[in-house]
Amino acid sequence: MKPNRGLLVVLSGPSGSGKGTVLKRAMQKNEQLELSVSVTTRAPREGEIDGVNYYFLTPEAFQNLLVEDGLLEWAEFCGNFYGTPREKIEQRLNEGKDVVLEIEVQGAMKVRAAFPDAVLIFNLPPSLEELKNRLIGRQTEPPEVVEKRMNTAVWELSQAENYDYVIVNDNVEDAANAFLSILSSEKCKTARNKALLAHF
Amino acid sequence: MKPNRGLLVVLSGPSGSGKGTVLKRAMQKNEQLELSVSVTTRAPREGEIDGVNYYFLTPEAFQNLLVEDGLLEWAEFCGNFYGTPREKIEQRLNEGKDVVLEIEVQGAMKVRAAFPDAVLIFNLPPSLEELKNRLIGRQTEPPEVVEKRMNTAVWELSQAENYDYVIVNDNVEDAANAFLSILSSEKCKTARNKALLAHF
Repeated sequence: MKPNRGLLVVLSGPSGSGKGTVLKRAMQKNEQLELSVSVTTRAPREGEIDGVNYYFLTPEAFQNLLVEDGLLEWAEFCGNFYGTPREKIEQRLNEGKDVVLEIEVQGAMKVRAAFPDAVLIFNLPPSLEELKNRLIGRQTEPPEVVEKRMNTAVWELSQAENYDYVIVNDNVEDAANAFLSILSSEKCKTARNKALLAHF
Repeated sequence: MKPNRGLLVVLSGPSGSGKGTVLKRAMQKNEQLELSVSVTTRAPREGEIDGVNYYFLTPEAFQNLLVEDGLLEWAEFCGNFYGTPREKIEQRLNEGKDVVLEIEVQGAMKVRAAFPDAVLIFNLPPSLEELKNRLIGRQTEPPEVVEKRMNTAVWELSQAENYDYVIVNDNVEDAANAFLSILSSEKCKTARNKALLAHF
């Protein structure tokens, strides 16, 4: 029997909201989840691994992929390019796998346009003050970059209302559980179970 | 601070689909959930307790409550009357409690009309054959009542598409978890978090 098509899930949130940590914990708790690895032209941060955190591309390689229509969405963000490779996602969804995209707001809206039944989740920091503390505490960026990220964060937070769900990352465990509950719940939606209901 | 208004949750499903068992397990796992106790004119089954399973009323007492506009919804079902007392539900929702109504299809549609943001969940048996086996196995009803309940079940199952969610009761534990995931997920819906988003 053909498996049900998997869920395409988008997780966004400002830099410093901890979305990567929430997603990592959620994936530890549910090993069926697959993370789509994005491509980017930005330089790797310390500890980031090519093919795991991102595929790190030169601007030329990124442009070639774009021209070949190999990107589901792409965007420029703080001077760097980010994109989502299309082919593997389609394949995994058709195999019944749930695929998560960790992408920013502009890309999320492009995914929604291309996949109307994608599930869009926005990860909120507990407060703007806490977000700033986290960005300063990270100490990987100079103050002017922190300031730029805060301004971007305020804009991104204003876009949360365009998402289906919001989760508050007060606590990683609770946020990961909320994320996984949303996925379980979406699979129970009547609109996603027409074939099942036709059996009765 | 005023608590968020609680969720009003409706659980329906054919007799024999095991919705009562699923709900009981869900309530063991989440003690914050409150079950609204319905009123009925049907006779108690063995082991049923007045005020716990139902408030068992005479037809006259039921009618008095109805005339006083004390019922959120009511319906006749297999010759008996069932109703949902309104006042306590409003009070508990305003206190931030989640309230579950275990009611049949006609009542569920009336609740949706009165509370557009109620969450409607339909509990499916694994199959029609399994449903019939469960109804026969119960042995509390004569064959003609089983037959009548099966006919009603087929009609009720045709109404599942009007619910927000369906859960398949293959296994009580999984069904209870799915039920609780839906509640957690609904609380993350952006539309239910306007006040939170206004803080950013």
